Amino acid sequence: MSYKIAIDVSGGDSAPAAIIEGAVLAKKEFNEDIVLIGIENEIKSYLDKHNYSLNDFIIVDAPEKIEMDESPLLSVRKKKKSSIVVGMDLLKQKKVDAFVSCGNTGAVVCSATIKLRLIEGVERPGIALMLPTKRGVSLVIDVGANIDCKPIHLFHYGIMASVYYELCLNKKNPSVGLLNIGEEASKGLGVLKKVHKLFTVAPLNFIGNLEAKELLSGNCDCIVCDGFVGNIALKVAEGSAEIIAKSFIEAMKKNFIGKVGLFLSKKNLLEFKRSINYAEYGGAPLLGVDGIVIIGHGRSNSLAVKNAVKAAVRELNRDLTKSISRRINDICQDSGVREIFTA
Amino acid sequence: MSYKIAIDVSGGDSAPAAIIEGAVLAKKEFNEDIVLIGIENEIKSYLDKHNYSLNDFIIVDAPEKIEMDESPLLSVRKKKKSSIVVGMDLLKQKKVDAFVSCGNTGAVVCSATIKLRLIEGVERPGIALMLPTKRGVSLVIDVGANIDCKPIHLFHYGIMASVYYELCLNKKNPSVGLLNIGEEASKGLGVLKKVHKLFTVAPLNFIGNLEAKELLSGNCDCIVCDGFVGNIALKVAEGSAEIIAKSFIEAMKKNFIGKVGLFLSKKNLLEFKRSINYAEYGGAPLLGVDGIVIIGHGRSNSLAVKNAVKAAVRELNRDLTKSISRRINDICQDSGVREIFTA
Repeated sequence: MSYKIAIDVSGGDSAPAAIIEGAVLAKKEFNEDIVLIGIENEIKSYLDKHNYSLNDFIIVDAPEKIEMDESPLLSVRKKKKSSIVVGMDLLKQKKVDAFVSCGNTGAVVCSATIKLRLIEGVERPGIALMLPTKRGVSLVIDVGANIDCKPIHLFHYGIMASVYYELCLNKKNPSVGLLNIGEEASKGLGVLKKVHKLFTVAPLNFIGNLEAKELLSGNCDCIVCDGFVGNIALKVAEGSAEIIAKSFIEAMKKNFIGKVGLFLSKKNLLEFKRSINYAEYGGAPLLGVDGIVIIGHGRSNSLAVKNAVKAAVRELNRDLTKSISRRINDICQDSGVREIFTA
Repeated sequence: MSYKIAIDVSGGDSAPAAIIEGAVLAKKEFNEDIVLIGIENEIKSYLDKHNYSLNDFIIVDAPEKIEMDESPLLSVRKKKKSSIVVGMDLLKQKKVDAFVSCGNTGAVVCSATIKLRLIEGVERPGIALMLPTKRGVSLVIDVGANIDCKPIHLFHYGIMASVYYELCLNKKNPSVGLLNIGEEASKGLGVLKKVHKLFTVAPLNFIGNLEAKELLSGNCDCIVCDGFVGNIALKVAEGSAEIIAKSFIEAMKKNFIGKVGLFLSKKNLLEFKRSINYAEYGGAPLLGVDGIVIIGHGRSNSLAVKNAVKAAVRELNRDLTKSISRRINDICQDSGVREIFTA
């Protein structure tokens, strides 16, 4: 029996075209049922126009659209027929097994929290971004769901990311680091100092504070930070990578010899570009909610959408939520951990 | 008459060699008196060994050394004969006109605040880093002096950076932006929302919230953020630039054709590397204290040290502290600004 994966067709800067194209790719690559949620006529005419089979997809009408800059809470409350709310309802009713959206991140987080509820023991959801690094993927949590983190939120992020990495990315005992302004345990505000203590006593592979210059090094599997800092860090990395790569190429083009060099290196550079392309990694699982929700980049192209579906597929059949709940409850009942919380 | 610029010879990862070499470069380039503060014997034997004239420098003995990972407050209190404390004392007594240190940043900020005191009206000092961007230099304030910012601190940072940019980097009415997780005024925590309001009514060229992906774009002259976020953003940018550039070259080297391409492009790439080299920009002025203090990168090489001295030279004769004090008092007495503070 195949799973049902719902995709928000109305969300994202290049919706609906890039989303539908991504769904077509996903349908081809994964043997699952794809549910397209959006403006029905629009979806049908797009599929028709591009000679895609309507039978390949289940289409669910969601005539309303939450714009990228709308207030999350208000839009989720008002627009009951938006793709995000309709998708989350289907997931809640277990009519679909996972929901992928590249739409308004705040609205996705908000509706997931309200409708799916949080996993038992978890207090805040966190967006766990799969960041391409020099050596494999680092999971950065949180990158924007929660910009006002208490120690317990950050602590849970570390536990959840660790469980996710182990179950879905198949690495035993992944390392966990705390993004901070220095390696010493005394660095940062009180919140971070407390989280450092918690991680130190918890049965996790905690490798201590991680300086931001290490973000892309791949030296840490799960990188914990609050949503504000994570969002800033991520966007700086994205922006820098783009600017440096462009400037690099411009620098090469400055004279004839350089142009020849560039021409000769083209194939290698394209391969390199692919390796650091966020689209190759696509979605970011929203951890902590009781259901499989994948948040895609607003700028997602079809490849990124397909890979967001891949991230959903990775979670299916893994019993992630139960494992997270169990792990959090186990760890938080540890006497050392409880002592730090009550201190 | 020439100015006296003091350099902390004991601070920085490559001290004392890189610092003394930087001082030699600075002595050659700027017609100022250079005061070397550090372990006297060490300095003298270095100069001697490398055939530099002892007469070119004034040497002040500071036998103690504050290590990079020492607690700022404790080390400043205990090590009265450290290069940082001795240098700050000389600046306070107006025996030197500026002080440059690549040592323990926290200790420099701490001793500057205690000894020099803050400019009238200013509540917290801020480190204003000169960041090389795609188009000229952006001043990012704060990058690590103050990790727990109130709205008034961030507001003052914007004013101080604006005055600095105008007086020392010679640009009328420089733009000011607030680093945030989105462009809308409603983004971020309450502190940032309040600062956004303050900037909106103040007579500054405020261009609104700035997303982190814009950090290296050069689209904003003065970028305001708290010291934690600034430090993270900066180090991500630094780390990403390094990793991307290295990976780029590795990608080119993957086969023979690529290697030829790389060889042909070498000159252009070296020029590019120079353009994004932090050492070309060197020091970060510590704004808000009543004196000229330049903080250099811990990893400073001789070029970075020379350019930190250049940053000090830029401030001499500019009446920066008086202008900052006047501007802050003028702006904070504005009725619109006062209304927001009392709201």
